[in-house]
Amino acid sequence: MRDVAIIGTGMMKWGELWEKSLRDLAVEAALLCFEDAGTDRIDAMTVGSMSSGLFNGQEHLASLVPDYLGRPLTPSIRVESACASGGLAVRTAFVEVASGMADYVLAVGVEKMNDVSGDVATYALATAADQDNEAFHGVTFPGLYAMIARAHMEKYGTTRDQLAEVAVKNHRNGSLNPKAQFPMAITRDTVLNSQLIADPLRLFDCSPVTDGAAAVLLTTVEEAKKLNKQPLVVITGVGHATDTIALSQRKDLTKLEAVQAAAQRALQMAGKTIKDMNFAEVHDCFTIAEICAMEAMGVVEPGQGGPATIDGMTALDGAFPINPSGGLKSKGHPVGATGVAQICECVSQLRGTSDKRQIKNARAAITQNMGGSGGSSVSHVLEIR
Amino acid sequence: MRDVAIIGTGMMKWGELWEKSLRDLAVEAALLCFEDAGTDRIDAMTVGSMSSGLFNGQEHLASLVPDYLGRPLTPSIRVESACASGGLAVRTAFVEVASGMADYVLAVGVEKMNDVSGDVATYALATAADQDNEAFHGVTFPGLYAMIARAHMEKYGTTRDQLAEVAVKNHRNGSLNPKAQFPMAITRDTVLNSQLIADPLRLFDCSPVTDGAAAVLLTTVEEAKKLNKQPLVVITGVGHATDTIALSQRKDLTKLEAVQAAAQRALQMAGKTIKDMNFAEVHDCFTIAEICAMEAMGVVEPGQGGPATIDGMTALDGAFPINPSGGLKSKGHPVGATGVAQICECVSQLRGTSDKRQIKNARAAITQNMGGSGGSSVSHVLEIR
Repeated sequence: MRDVAIIGTGMMKWGELWEKSLRDLAVEAALLCFEDAGTDRIDAMTVGSMSSGLFNGQEHLASLVPDYLGRPLTPSIRVESACASGGLAVRTAFVEVASGMADYVLAVGVEKMNDVSGDVATYALATAADQDNEAFHGVTFPGLYAMIARAHMEKYGTTRDQLAEVAVKNHRNGSLNPKAQFPMAITRDTVLNSQLIADPLRLFDCSPVTDGAAAVLLTTVEEAKKLNKQPLVVITGVGHATDTIALSQRKDLTKLEAVQAAAQRALQMAGKTIKDMNFAEVHDCFTIAEICAMEAMGVVEPGQGGPATIDGMTALDGAFPINPSGGLKSKGHPVGATGVAQICECVSQLRGTSDKRQIKNARAAITQNMGGSGGSSVSHVLEIR
Repeated sequence: MRDVAIIGTGMMKWGELWEKSLRDLAVEAALLCFEDAGTDRIDAMTVGSMSSGLFNGQEHLASLVPDYLGRPLTPSIRVESACASGGLAVRTAFVEVASGMADYVLAVGVEKMNDVSGDVATYALATAADQDNEAFHGVTFPGLYAMIARAHMEKYGTTRDQLAEVAVKNHRNGSLNPKAQFPMAITRDTVLNSQLIADPLRLFDCSPVTDGAAAVLLTTVEEAKKLNKQPLVVITGVGHATDTIALSQRKDLTKLEAVQAAAQRALQMAGKTIKDMNFAEVHDCFTIAEICAMEAMGVVEPGQGGPATIDGMTALDGAFPINPSGGLKSKGHPVGATGVAQICECVSQLRGTSDKRQIKNARAAITQNMGGSGGSSVSHVLEIR
């Protein structure tokens, strides 16, 4: 397989983007990406979107996006793995380039979630859970992650303050990110006094409903060198795994096995360990998710995610920064776009262009993009060459 | 890239399968495929489904299918390109094997369409069209293909009888296929006297709403030889292209440019021309679709699809048989499964195991699986080695 580089990234400021349609978002992210890359060559593309059918009455984005981008006949693949659709779009684009099927491949992630009412959005998101055994009975994602949180508290003594600190840290980072949907710093009290959603999770433990898109342009390292891209950001590892879609089938609610396997596979492919990574973008759809994910990825031992967060290990200036972008919590979570945006943030950090939220000496990063309550996970290892 | 063989296929009899759920269908097709292959090894999988979100309130099939198949941690990709989702699942599995990402990859296509009422199914299918410029205004697929049919009649003098003969031929083939949803022979009068749906298309010009799944198992030619698979069916070409999602943006309604490009790309990769192919499985979602597709693929010159069909060229014993399986028209059209089932039929024919519908001297075949009104198309070239 050929070595693959990322030569461009693009995303707009995320939020409630009433003036932009689904197709507008996808095309805008692609154009921003071309501008950043200094080339608009694409031989193929992938589109990550979780449920444009339920959110927008629009499937067939594999045709729609290249069409509205003005690229007739482009081979185009829409991939879906719930909230990991964006990561999967990047992974699929990676394989297209690595295999030699195409030389320049654009990966776009997009979700336009605010065109439906809150209950329809909650239903659409719940289709990432097991419809027959979870969603049909009325459980939605706040409830599923609340069960994970309760199990984690019970097993490891994780506290409400530790959960809250994930949101505080991510909002602090997001306040330095001009593209974040909610770029305001908050305090622990903001979280603890917010509306109870699904005990023990409160409003500020939850990522928001967001409209947004993100895009990355991949090509071979050889081509990237011809374009004189410096510093050169290379995808040295991709990892991907699935787990039971329903929580009831897990041996241990606190252990995200797909997250562990995907991260291990990506690191193994890169010939690295988690200790070689300088920071991570992690799927904090709920505060407990970041804690479980960092444990599954081996950043800390199981049960140590809460204490490490309180101790500042994962802060921008900590030993292992997590979610310098602000994460899903502050940056927003247009589900199909999230995994692509994680890559955009890593590229920005590795290039040293992250301004006030720049991590010092960032040379290697790992991403973790989760589907459902851990039913799937995609990780990428990115390094400077 | 590595050479890729197909070592197993599986599908159940299609129809209104009230006793089987979405997940049952996917798992059953996979188990039938393992039985046929003589191995149940899989390192990764792909799942093609157009709109399980709208039909079944269930996204995240990338997690659901390997989960219910009892394969935890399997990397799994759900792909969607409307009614070409199945072909895209096979193409994506091909690239996984060819690239070296995985050695044994299962591609499953599935759609469970009868659990919703007819109007909901029609809406769900219409999300493959341009929501803003077509579906929102009330046009659905029979109407879109009726416009293509009218344009074809106007430009080339294609007749109602020629359209009807596509259905007659495909039902005759389907009557020999024990897995077809509607395995009954019909006459031209059956078509011409059936209910008018969207002028000039009548009920028997349209493929049905179907529950069903199909699966194929791919591995390297090297591995397949170790398993002593004979005759060995090899995928020698894959082709994939997109076009404008809306008909209004096409220069010529009768010309399916994505179909042409995808077929040309697959043939070019195989180092073949259409004349080297012995037969084809083609996407006859409506009778006019088969005529336009065979013209776009170069089986006949533009405008000659109707006359060639009436003349018997595409019959089982004709010079170039099309849809020996019965096609979408008779076999049924569970949209995400169709492209995978096309591959199953080609493998059966190439192996010489198609019983009463066996084509003589079948050594090379091409498939054509269409999304929407030609917004995307996927072709595969299969050959005996």
